Amino acid sequence: MLHAPGDLRVEQREVPVPGPHDVLVEVVAVGVCGSDVHYYEHGRIGSRVVSEPLVLGHETSGRVVALGSQVARRSIGDRVCLEPGVPCGCCRECRAGRYNLCPEMRFLGTPPVDGSLTNYLAVHEDFAFPLPATVSDEAGALIEPLAVAVWACRRAGISAGDCVLVTGAGPIGLLVAQAARAFGATEVTITDVSGARLDFARRLGISATIDVSSSPVTDVALEVDVLVECSGRAAALADAMGALRPAGVAVLVGMGESEVHLPLEALQRRELWVTGTFRYANAYPAAIALAAEGQVDLESMITGRYGLDDAVAALRSSREDPGSVKALVRP
Amino acid sequence: MLHAPGDLRVEQREVPVPGPHDVLVEVVAVGVCGSDVHYYEHGRIGSRVVSEPLVLGHETSGRVVALGSQVARRSIGDRVCLEPGVPCGCCRECRAGRYNLCPEMRFLGTPPVDGSLTNYLAVHEDFAFPLPATVSDEAGALIEPLAVAVWACRRAGISAGDCVLVTGAGPIGLLVAQAARAFGATEVTITDVSGARLDFARRLGISATIDVSSSPVTDVALEVDVLVECSGRAAALADAMGALRPAGVAVLVGMGESEVHLPLEALQRRELWVTGTFRYANAYPAAIALAAEGQVDLESMITGRYGLDDAVAALRSSREDPGSVKALVRP
Amino acid sequence: MLHAPGDLRVEQREVPVPGPHDVLVEVVAVGVCGSDVHYYEHGRIGSRVVSEPLVLGHETSGRVVALGSQVARRSIGDRVCLEPGVPCGCCRECRAGRYNLCPEMRFLGTPPVDGSLTNYLAVHEDFAFPLPATVSDEAGALIEPLAVAVWACRRAGISAGDCVLVTGAGPIGLLVAQAARAFGATEVTITDVSGARLDFARRLGISATIDVSSSPVTDVALEVDVLVECSGRAAALADAMGALRPAGVAVLVGMGESEVHLPLEALQRRELWVTGTFRYANAYPAAIALAAEGQVDLESMITGRYGLDDAVAALRSSREDPGSVKALVRP
Amino acid sequence: MLHAPGDLRVEQREVPVPGPHDVLVEVVAVGVCGSDVHYYEHGRIGSRVVSEPLVLGHETSGRVVALGSQVARRSIGDRVCLEPGVPCGCCRECRAGRYNLCPEMRFLGTPPVDGSLTNYLAVHEDFAFPLPATVSDEAGALIEPLAVAVWACRRAGISAGDCVLVTGAGPIGLLVAQAARAFGATEVTITDVSGARLDFARRLGISATIDVSSSPVTDVALEVDVLVECSGRAAALADAMGALRPAGVAVLVGMGESEVHLPLEALQRRELWVTGTFRYANAYPAAIALAAEGQVDLESMITGRYGLDDAVAALRSSREDPGSVKALVRP
Repeated sequence: MLHAPGDLRVEQREVPVPGPHDVLVEVVAVGVCGSDVHYYEHGRIGSRVVSEPLVLGHETSGRVVALGSQVARRSIGDRVCLEPGVPCGCCRECRAGRYNLCPEMRFLGTPPVDGSLTNYLAVHEDFAFPLPATVSDEAGALIEPLAVAVWACRRAGISAGDCVLVTGAGPIGLLVAQAARAFGATEVTITDVSGARLDFARRLGISATIDVSSSPVTDVALEVDVLVECSGRAAALADAMGALRPAGVAVLVGMGESEVHLPLEALQRRELWVTGTFRYANAYPAAIALAAEGQVDLESMITGRYGLDDAVAALRSSREDPGSVKALVRP
Repeated sequence: MLHAPGDLRVEQREVPVPGPHDVLVEVVAVGVCGSDVHYYEHGRIGSRVVSEPLVLGHETSGRVVALGSQVARRSIGDRVCLEPGVPCGCCRECRAGRYNLCPEMRFLGTPPVDGSLTNYLAVHEDFAFPLPATVSDEAGALIEPLAVAVWACRRAGISAGDCVLVTGAGPIGLLVAQAARAFGATEVTITDVSGARLDFARRLGISATIDVSSSPVTDVALEVDVLVECSGRAAALADAMGALRPAGVAVLVGMGESEVHLPLEALQRRELWVTGTFRYANAYPAAIALAAEGQVDLESMITGRYGLDDAVAALRSSREDPGSVKALVRP
Repeated sequence: MLHAPGDLRVEQREVPVPGPHDVLVEVVAVGVCGSDVHYYEHGRIGSRVVSEPLVLGHETSGRVVALGSQVARRSIGDRVCLEPGVPCGCCRECRAGRYNLCPEMRFLGTPPVDGSLTNYLAVHEDFAFPLPATVSDEAGALIEPLAVAVWACRRAGISAGDCVLVTGAGPIGLLVAQAARAFGATEVTITDVSGARLDFARRLGISATIDVSSSPVTDVALEVDVLVECSGRAAALADAMGALRPAGVAVLVGMGESEVHLPLEALQRRELWVTGTFRYANAYPAAIALAAEGQVDLESMITGRYGLDDAVAALRSSREDPGSVKALVRP
Repeated sequence: MLHAPGDLRVEQREVPVPGPHDVLVEVVAVGVCGSDVHYYEHGRIGSRVVSEPLVLGHETSGRVVALGSQVARRSIGDRVCLEPGVPCGCCRECRAGRYNLCPEMRFLGTPPVDGSLTNYLAVHEDFAFPLPATVSDEAGALIEPLAVAVWACRRAGISAGDCVLVTGAGPIGLLVAQAARAFGATEVTITDVSGARLDFARRLGISATIDVSSSPVTDVALEVDVLVECSGRAAALADAMGALRPAGVAVLVGMGESEVHLPLEALQRRELWVTGTFRYANAYPAAIALAAEGQVDLESMITGRYGLDDAVAALRSSREDPGSVKALVRP
């Protein structure tokens, strides 16, 4: 439990009792996300403040060990991954199918909702998705960031034959690049300031890389249909916008800046579309199917494994180890 | 003809000979657009420079007085309005239906293509649209800026029941506000820094107005589905973005700034869409139909009429007369 | 309560107790729908059978007279209209924003869910929509069929300048024709076999009518962007398909046939789109806004008013009185 | 040249002189399409009648051997595949980006336009697409039917994670199934009445097959997002419609019947979309990219190679040899 910035403690808590529509899940693997690290280091993300002790974690796979009285579609023993955000189900956004924008969303590991870096969790059965046999428990924990990537590709409208530029080769950028190919993109280029990240990208099969520490995107004659910004750096965005073809789409996934500066003439003369993404909606089934069919390689993304007692080391790994891509905690 | 900034002369030229697919049009009315004024004052717009004497004008209605040898769908005597941009018809953008983005576009009154502030003009028959009896010659000249407005509404996806905010009550803003209602918007609010412009808007039936010289949009609790920025002022855009609902759309029509600054958190947390427009494609039939059905009032927009010899006065009127909305030249 | 085909009785029942998120609504007006008549006459619609006594009615307006403990957004005294279908909120269809296709939908007046031909009804606050002052209680009861029309227009993608053909001038056809204009259609033609219905359409301002008992649509040179079939007659559909332009859309709203026969060459050579509609999703806010702005005239649709004791007469009126368009029961 | 049904002759003709924007192409490979066979056997397809001697063929690859005076984007020696339909470029459909629906379309091998079963052909440079090194000349000839498949998938909106059912395992069905996977479909099932065709499908990697001569689709519990009908048999369509999920899409590619019978209740209760396709628009770049990246295997589709003198044998092969999938003529 996170008590204060830098103060993470392991504590004993009651095993939760599942409500009528809930399943009780024994947690098997939890991926560490940049937002977990940010809460650990700063105790807040923007206006969301950790004011009471909080369990972190929201990239989760596990096993169903008990069923609420009304559960109809899950069984004990099911291997599942968890969609961490449960929306209200009847506001304007939920009704319109944009439940990720629900103002009443309760999201694991986001104050005041406890997360999954724990042994047992009760969740609504419809938010515990069965894992096919071809998706391991560890890969199952990464379905959540893959859903972020699927959602970005879907909003960008990536389709067969598209050329896609991904700025930033962190975990999300690497997943977006893989997902873009699964959506049919035939040219995918990824950029980063870190040569090690780009090496990692090439090992995942993303052969076109640009090291923007030495050669800015603007130096490369690129013509892309879609830009997915995953670095969170305004400069990366500004440079990359010039590569977009008429009617192209830029999707801003990376966070970190308060403002983005966009060239008005390009927006108008090329009628570009720009949008941001916030989590995902209706993306788990596709993410699971892509992983199951081997269209996206999740296993290779995992660069470290930790026990619950080592959660602090897991949280620190992404900062301290430049070779770290995705750390996993196995309670 | 524009010889240099501020140097506009009336000259005698040969009546053009229509090509096989062209009609010869006797010009009846030409609206003065901000871009004409800009060329007149500065001799350029961005990278497009008036390096040889240029005829201005692109908002045009007239009468067909001669037919090319292959013309099949127009007749002598047809009252027509002219779509001023003729694209190449076979590049990537043209084939995709985005012919406004054609890099080979030839557009009236834009260097090096002469415009319509003249007596006779030869144009491809398919770019001379017949005017219904309910659309006057003068209104016909304003189909062009109405097409700009229709295109903005179409790209914004305005539909029945939408709430729309239009920033800037110049000619384009006033047409966008009217067009938005024709697209089904049930709440349309328009802003400006000029009380006179807002009075004019109210006379056109846009009852909800905000004078942003005294009360910024941010002071008003607005929730809109669509923002159409027509003022060309970055500050107007920044203030108005906050009024957009989740999944809302901002369309940037106004020109003048080189960069727009957008709040990243709003783009992401509300998954807003932002785009710009450049002229229009496939918008003339709808614009003509809206004018013919009285859904948009073009006549009331005309605040001054000038002869060809008075073209300079027409060009100056928008700058010198705060009550001027749209000046018309009648050759 | 409907006990058997033709056996409708008025009975005393307990006033329902609202759940925590429910409001208790005193019913003011209930429109009679063709489906109510069908249940009354046949005791079933397709596979949905009235096996236990059923209260009919689902087009409802009323007044909030009591609040559940958790109700936050409604007040006692609110004038409301009711969205009659409450979906589960978390199945695949609900999450995707297509809640009208939810397999767990509970819909007023559809077995086994009692309807609104009663004095009091408890409904979730989010399905009781406040009526603006410009929408009367009686018009409020017709928001439900207007939502059907709005949904059809939305699925058809009707936009400014479109030409629309509506086959069938019953209550739904008349509302679709009105809604189509509100969506920006500049040409709307309606057909029927009844001259009286077409007279009624003209009184509502739909000036272009075709009496298909004497002149089939195929005799009229029509070119439309959208066809909305509201007659439920296969022949009407087959005749009208020929009027659709390339890339046109046909939306089938009318029920009654088991199969529709479509010309394959037209579907392919003109790449037409065909779909059906089932109720509506996210359509109430737009329907209410259109009624409030006077874009759709609901009052004039009401041709008969009955007390709860006269419900049988109300149900029979549509069959027995050719001049009847919409009967209203006022409990 | 086809003089009459069954009467195909090799004749000497002048090498065409390319117009200013044309390239002269030496034909290398021509695929035989079902429509060629139909013209050969019946002398007509529907209303399109071979009234004068006609050169057949429209699936073409070749080499640029001469350039028109204005050609700017192609060079002598370029290996190219030809988009066989040249639209007018300025009608309503062309302007809207639906140039495949242009009523003035001139299409190779369709009366009265001669096709590509010849040695030399002059075509507009923009309709001769360069082949990447990874696409062979023979595969290049199959870009045309692949474009048909890409267009069907695009109209169906196939995206990552979709389940797709393809009825009919002829050349188009096999290409649609492959293209569907390239668009991200994770489950693709194909049906046919021929075990040999299904074997062929499995060799192409489409592992889920249904032999509908023994087990109708209706016997298999399928839930698909998209149905692409490629058999041209009404019965196949009727059976397969039942497999579509709510909001699913059926795209009718196969020709042969005059009417299709669709179940109205399914169209409405599940709000299915149905459309047909006619050739393709803007599909060549994506088709070429998919072939170049190995996402679609064109080489394995070729089951016979013939000289120009053997064109009759090539035309007959598809009828006479049940193992034939795609015959190629190499002039």
